[in-house]
Amino acid sequence: MAASAGLIGVDWGTTSLRAYLLAPNGTVLDRKQSQDGILAASVRGFGHVFRETIGPWSRPEQPLPVLMSGMIGSRQGWVEAPYLACPTDISAIAIRLLAVEPAQTGLAKQASVRIVPGLSFRDAAGVPDVMRGEETQIIGALADGEASSGLLVLPGTHSKWAKVEGGRIVSFATYMTGEVYAALKDHTILGRMMDGGGHAPEAFARGVRAAAAQSGPPGAILHQIFSARTLALFEQLASKDVAAYLSGLLIGAEIVAAAPSGSDITIIAGAELASHYASAAAQLGISARLAPADCVAAGHIAIARAAQLI
Amino acid sequence: MAASAGLIGVDWGTTSLRAYLLAPNGTVLDRKQSQDGILAASVRGFGHVFRETIGPWSRPEQPLPVLMSGMIGSRQGWVEAPYLACPTDISAIAIRLLAVEPAQTGLAKQASVRIVPGLSFRDAAGVPDVMRGEETQIIGALADGEASSGLLVLPGTHSKWAKVEGGRIVSFATYMTGEVYAALKDHTILGRMMDGGGHAPEAFARGVRAAAAQSGPPGAILHQIFSARTLALFEQLASKDVAAYLSGLLIGAEIVAAAPSGSDITIIAGAELASHYASAAAQLGISARLAPADCVAAGHIAIARAAQLI
Repeated sequence: MAASAGLIGVDWGTTSLRAYLLAPNGTVLDRKQSQDGILAASVRGFGHVFRETIGPWSRPEQPLPVLMSGMIGSRQGWVEAPYLACPTDISAIAIRLLAVEPAQTGLAKQASVRIVPGLSFRDAAGVPDVMRGEETQIIGALADGEASSGLLVLPGTHSKWAKVEGGRIVSFATYMTGEVYAALKDHTILGRMMDGGGHAPEAFARGVRAAAAQSGPPGAILHQIFSARTLALFEQLASKDVAAYLSGLLIGAEIVAAAPSGSDITIIAGAELASHYASAAAQLGISARLAPADCVAAGHIAIARAAQLI
Repeated sequence: MAASAGLIGVDWGTTSLRAYLLAPNGTVLDRKQSQDGILAASVRGFGHVFRETIGPWSRPEQPLPVLMSGMIGSRQGWVEAPYLACPTDISAIAIRLLAVEPAQTGLAKQASVRIVPGLSFRDAAGVPDVMRGEETQIIGALADGEASSGLLVLPGTHSKWAKVEGGRIVSFATYMTGEVYAALKDHTILGRMMDGGGHAPEAFARGVRAAAAQSGPPGAILHQIFSARTLALFEQLASKDVAAYLSGLLIGAEIVAAAPSGSDITIIAGAELASHYASAAAQLGISARLAPADCVAAGHIAIARAAQLI
C-alpha cells in the first residue's frame, strides 16, 4: 500500500486528529482518527503523538512528506505559523508553509514536515477574523473545479463563511452559532424547557421559518431566542421540540445574515450537519451544493503539489 | 414602628426575596432581604419562609395585608397566578390579585395575602412573552407621575422593555442579555481571552460604539461577538478589557434593537446596572431617566390601594 503513497496529510484540531495516507492523485490509501487534538497532545507531547500517528506509514530510509493543518499551527499548538492575510490563494499559502524542524519531529532531516498557515481577514471597520484548518478544506473544495467562485460555509462550533472569487479566498467571517447554541442549551433557562435534543425536522424547520420572518438589528436576536421558552410555556411547542426549534432559529438567523437571498452556497461538512444546513438553506431560497467528502485531504494534496512537495 | 404600618410588600423572585414594611403613604418603615427565593423556599417550605419573613412585622390579632409579586406566582412558585394579557393597567391588575388561602399561609382567615399576576403579551406573529414581578416595579415607576407614557426598561438577566401609554402597559419584550453574557463569558471560548471582569468604562464604551456601528439582520450578532476574541488575539484589546467590551457590545445591541433612536427611556434598576445602561443609552443618543429606588414597594402600595386592601 505504502508503495504508491506520496503524502501524509494531518488535520490536527483542538480536540481531534485526523490523518490520511494519500496517493499523489489524492486517493485516500489509509486513514486514522483519534482524540489526540492539541489539548491532549500538549500533555502527551506533540512529537510523541506525531511519530505514533505517522510511524506505521513512513519508512525512515524513505520518509514521506507530511503536511499538517489546523490548530497545530496556533499559539497553543506545536509551532506557531503566522496568519496569512486575505485576499489570498493556494500559491501564497504554498509559499508560506512553515517547516517543523527535525529537532522537534525526531525524524531524519530529509523528512519534510510542514504546517499550513491559518488565514486572517480584516473587515471594513478593521476588526480581524481568523481561521485555522478550514483554509485547507476550502482549497480542497476548490480543487474539484466546481466552486471556484461563490460562498462556501464550514458549519459547526464556529461556522466559517468564505467568499471565493476566481479561486482566491477574498474574505471570510466566523459565526459562533454552534457554540452559542450549546451555551444557551446547557447554561441558560432555555435548556430547562428542553426534553431531549433529538432529531425533530419539523421543529427545526419551524425555527428556520421564525428566523426568516424576523427583522430588526443584530440585538433583536437577544429577544427572539426567548421564544424557545415562551412558546413551550404556553404549550405552543412541545418540550421534546424545543432544542430543534432553537437550533433552527440560530442556524436560520446565521444563514440569513451570511448569505444574500438567492445566492448559491457550497457546504463543507459531515453528512448530518450538512443536511441540516442544506435544508435550512432550501427553506430560505438559497441553493446549496455539498462539497465532496475528505475535502481536507484534497486540500493537503493540492497545497503539497503547489509547494512542489510531491 | 409597626403602629403606622399599613402593608407588607414582598418581591419574591427565583433566587432572592425582598420584603418591605410600608406605611400607607409608601414610606419604607423596615426592609429585609434574603436568598430565600422560590428555589430555596420550595425546599424549606413556602409557608415556613413566608411566616419567618413577615412574623416580626404582623401581629396575629391585627394582621397586616400582604401583597407579593414575582416568581412566587409562577408554576414553580407557591400558588400559580395566571398571566394577565397586555394591554392592561393597574385597575385590571388589582381585580386579578390571587388570594393565598389561610390553609397555605398558616395565618388567621382575616389576614389578606395576595399575589400580583404576571403579564403576558403576544406580538404580531403570535409569539408570547411574559414577565412576573417587573409589572409591579413598572406600576411603581408610573406612580410618581413622570413616566405615564414612554419606554421603560428593567435591565438584568432577562431585560424587560415595556411600552406605556397613558398609564397603560401596552406591550413589552424580553431580551436575554444578562444571561447570554454570562453564558458566553463562562461557557464559550470568549471567556478564555478574559482576564478578570472588573469595571472598565472605556472598554465598555468601545463595545457600545461597536454595537452602534454594526448593521445586518439579527443573526449578524453571532459573528460580531467573535470580535471579543479576535481583537484580543491581535492585541487590539487588552485581556483585562475583554469582559467589559463584550458587555458593552451586548447591552449596546440590546438598546439599539429595543429603543428607537432619539427616544426617552426610564431605567428601573439598582445603581450600578442603571449607570451602565444610562451611559450606553447616552452614547446611542437616547436620553435616560432613572426611576426612584424601591419602585417595587411603590408598586405594592399603588396596587394595594387600587384593590382597596389599604
